[in-house]
Amino acid sequence: MNEKLKKLKDIVYEINDINKAIAVLGWDQETYMPKDGIAGRAEQISTLSQISHKKATSQILGDLIKSLKVELSELDQDFDDARLIKVLDRNYQKQIKVPIEFVAEFAKASSLGQQAWAEARTKSDFLIFAPHLKKIVELRKQYADFFAPYDHIYDPMLDDFEQGLKTSDVKAILDKLRSVQVNLVQKIKSKPEIDNSFFKLKFDNKKQWDFGVDVITKFGYDWDRGRQDKSEHPFTTDFGVNDVRITTRIDEYYLPSGLFGSMHEAGHGMYEQGIAQKLARTPLCAGASCAVHESQSRLWENIVGRSLPFWEYYYPILQKKFPSNLSDISLGCFYKAVNKVIPSMIRVEADEATYNLHIMLRTEIEIGLLDGSINVDDLPTVWNSKMMEYLGLNPKNDSEGVLQDIHWSMGYIGYFSTYTLGNLISAQIWEKINEDIPELNNNIKNGDFTELLTWLKENIHKHGAKFEPQELVEKVTGSKITPEPYLRYLTEKYSKIYDL
Amino acid sequence: MNEKLKKLKDIVYEINDINKAIAVLGWDQETYMPKDGIAGRAEQISTLSQISHKKATSQILGDLIKSLKVELSELDQDFDDARLIKVLDRNYQKQIKVPIEFVAEFAKASSLGQQAWAEARTKSDFLIFAPHLKKIVELRKQYADFFAPYDHIYDPMLDDFEQGLKTSDVKAILDKLRSVQVNLVQKIKSKPEIDNSFFKLKFDNKKQWDFGVDVITKFGYDWDRGRQDKSEHPFTTDFGVNDVRITTRIDEYYLPSGLFGSMHEAGHGMYEQGIAQKLARTPLCAGASCAVHESQSRLWENIVGRSLPFWEYYYPILQKKFPSNLSDISLGCFYKAVNKVIPSMIRVEADEATYNLHIMLRTEIEIGLLDGSINVDDLPTVWNSKMMEYLGLNPKNDSEGVLQDIHWSMGYIGYFSTYTLGNLISAQIWEKINEDIPELNNNIKNGDFTELLTWLKENIHKHGAKFEPQELVEKVTGSKITPEPYLRYLTEKYSKIYDL
Repeated sequence: MNEKLKKLKDIVYEINDINKAIAVLGWDQETYMPKDGIAGRAEQISTLSQISHKKATSQILGDLIKSLKVELSELDQDFDDARLIKVLDRNYQKQIKVPIEFVAEFAKASSLGQQAWAEARTKSDFLIFAPHLKKIVELRKQYADFFAPYDHIYDPMLDDFEQGLKTSDVKAILDKLRSVQVNLVQKIKSKPEIDNSFFKLKFDNKKQWDFGVDVITKFGYDWDRGRQDKSEHPFTTDFGVNDVRITTRIDEYYLPSGLFGSMHEAGHGMYEQGIAQKLARTPLCAGASCAVHESQSRLWENIVGRSLPFWEYYYPILQKKFPSNLSDISLGCFYKAVNKVIPSMIRVEADEATYNLHIMLRTEIEIGLLDGSINVDDLPTVWNSKMMEYLGLNPKNDSEGVLQDIHWSMGYIGYFSTYTLGNLISAQIWEKINEDIPELNNNIKNGDFTELLTWLKENIHKHGAKFEPQELVEKVTGSKITPEPYLRYLTEKYSKIYDL
Repeated sequence: MNEKLKKLKDIVYEINDINKAIAVLGWDQETYMPKDGIAGRAEQISTLSQISHKKATSQILGDLIKSLKVELSELDQDFDDARLIKVLDRNYQKQIKVPIEFVAEFAKASSLGQQAWAEARTKSDFLIFAPHLKKIVELRKQYADFFAPYDHIYDPMLDDFEQGLKTSDVKAILDKLRSVQVNLVQKIKSKPEIDNSFFKLKFDNKKQWDFGVDVITKFGYDWDRGRQDKSEHPFTTDFGVNDVRITTRIDEYYLPSGLFGSMHEAGHGMYEQGIAQKLARTPLCAGASCAVHESQSRLWENIVGRSLPFWEYYYPILQKKFPSNLSDISLGCFYKAVNKVIPSMIRVEADEATYNLHIMLRTEIEIGLLDGSINVDDLPTVWNSKMMEYLGLNPKNDSEGVLQDIHWSMGYIGYFSTYTLGNLISAQIWEKINEDIPELNNNIKNGDFTELLTWLKENIHKHGAKFEPQELVEKVTGSKITPEPYLRYLTEKYSKIYDL
């Protein structure tokens, strides 16, 4: 191997190992860490983040990238190494703009923020979290300034999660979706309400857990290279391609919560597990972007997990597990219940028709916090009034309102819109898969997901972050991210369910 | 604060944070990590170990220590900062002798070694572990050479766990104990055997777990700053004074295993939890030595946990939990059963009278592996013949023989003798505590351990590693480590139990 390339990779591997150690510390913080461990943990994460940042912005790394960019420019730009240099160069140019002191301060603020958020959520008291969020917003504004000039102060944050995307793009896409989805929800509202009251019966925790495990095992989640734990807010994390972990949150009195949560995170997890081993320990060993990642989780959770063929196979099994709750509910009723459209308070439990309205609310608030048109102190009020405007609902407390998502406490501002983009991509991919595997629905009806996962691995997972999101979507589906397939999917599905 | 001291502490804190992150990675590896995560984990630990080692041996740290040693020499040498410099100086002088490449190689070898050991143990096949152990022994020999000249090749390893101790000291202590303990065991052998067969009835896992939790909660283990998990081999680890974790291993068909395991590890854990907060993030925030640490675990496990007053309080509670197994067993019989002397295969389950014989076996083997008189390939044979010689037993497979301890797989050679020293110290301390708290036995009989833990905190725990082990023992008990109190304790206890 080229001497310089070897030297570069050694640095890249070292940075990767530190970042994965930080991920382990983060996973532990969310799953098992005792209460009083938080301050020490914040210090550890801050220290490792500083070391990682220092190495990722070192002159020696910059020089190697610069020189290898020239040397490898002769190569086919699809070669892994050429792509690696491209991604490293992009990340390096971004990172050197951010001072190391800022990185440390931000890591500490978000670590403490998460703890405060968890406490605030338990006590349903936004005031506990407010000072932390103020600090985070303040730091995010500082962050944006490192990338000035920008079209919009929100752009630099967005770009961190979905490279190349602009605030104006997101606004345009949301606008385009809004009218169709509002129209659809209106039509549905005029139809008889679906009964899903049985979801609120008691479903034993342990049995729910076991059923979820059974489902994602059949999906193809690899337990030799992963595990599932419980956490306040479900998430997926990886410490390398051979250790990809998911978490879930089970509600004993609301079945869909844990069930679809597990499928969702398993979708993320299988993506990470499917990345080619040769990309390990480099920035290419990751999803192509947040939206592409979300396309995988939403595909398994919604397009598969809320489909009729899926429940044709799994409903009899679920019924057998919970006979007293479900023996009187027919497959048809159950299928309709998991697809019931109803404006709800909680994003993660929102149906596919209203989900994007939750995203709009959050995205507008984020943009407002950044551009100064919304103050942190006013957030509960702003949240509640937007909930009323978009969904006709009034959160009864902070916990089911402004405190429901962990993202801001982690410093994730700019993330939410990728959920909607993920939905769009999932439907684009789904149309393509059905062209390639005409018998797909039949396979699912028989509880066989092998061909589906193989297709996803081959066409998406194995590439990791080698291709940029728009490039990958175009490579796979023939066009860039576009809302039409998703709107077709929604309209067709709900027309049948609601007899529109 | 002195500018130099502040600079020094910043470096010390940084190194501490990295080392605690490594500890989290290690904890996770032993408790929750999925099988195939091992290679990536080894890389992460290796990378962080290298970074830590580089910082701990940096010129800048060395210069600061050197200069502060002079500046602070005017101070009372009992001041925390003066002690910190002393410990840092000692560690620094040792660490700069070890090349960074060696540290990385050793970390990787022991990480892979642990995984191989776990597999070998499950399959009871020493051959799976042998190549890893060879590598570890080879590296340990290299390690000793960094400290040449030495009196004995085993000295440098011993010194890592019990500073200042020599191979000749250990041999002398073991020799002194051997004759008395052999004599005691002989006398006991001539007495009627105690019946403890009921231990091998089925004791429900979950109930065992709950009982252990109840006991160590009463002891004073702080759950806001700790937790208990399951692992192949029980251990205690800490990620700072406010996050100290223990593990246990429950055997559904052998009650003492999990029960005394939990008490033992809680003894270690409470030591770490009792260290003064002002020592946090420095090398003073640790036990004084392995032996002093072990004195705490053995004190709670044996001197308290196998005492009559303890069971006077706890036996009725245990009986109520397992009525079908225990209702016919009297307190007297139960107390004798937990103190039954019988040569057994498994060190961690050995009684107090034979325990040190297990230590002799292991210490002799370690010394032999290092000085070349024993080959790794011959280990199962050597182990088994020594077991016959000392305990009259013949292990039926590698798993209950040479593979029973995790230590060597972790690269811990030189550690075992500290178990015996810990026993000695626990008895020395116990005599002193009973002078200071005459009503101690009565407290224990009432399930009240508050005064005991407070005494330990005040006299031992809070100091952390501020004092050297011999210094601390002398400060607390009035004399250095000495076998007499332990031999008195053993003789008195067993004379009553066996009517000698």
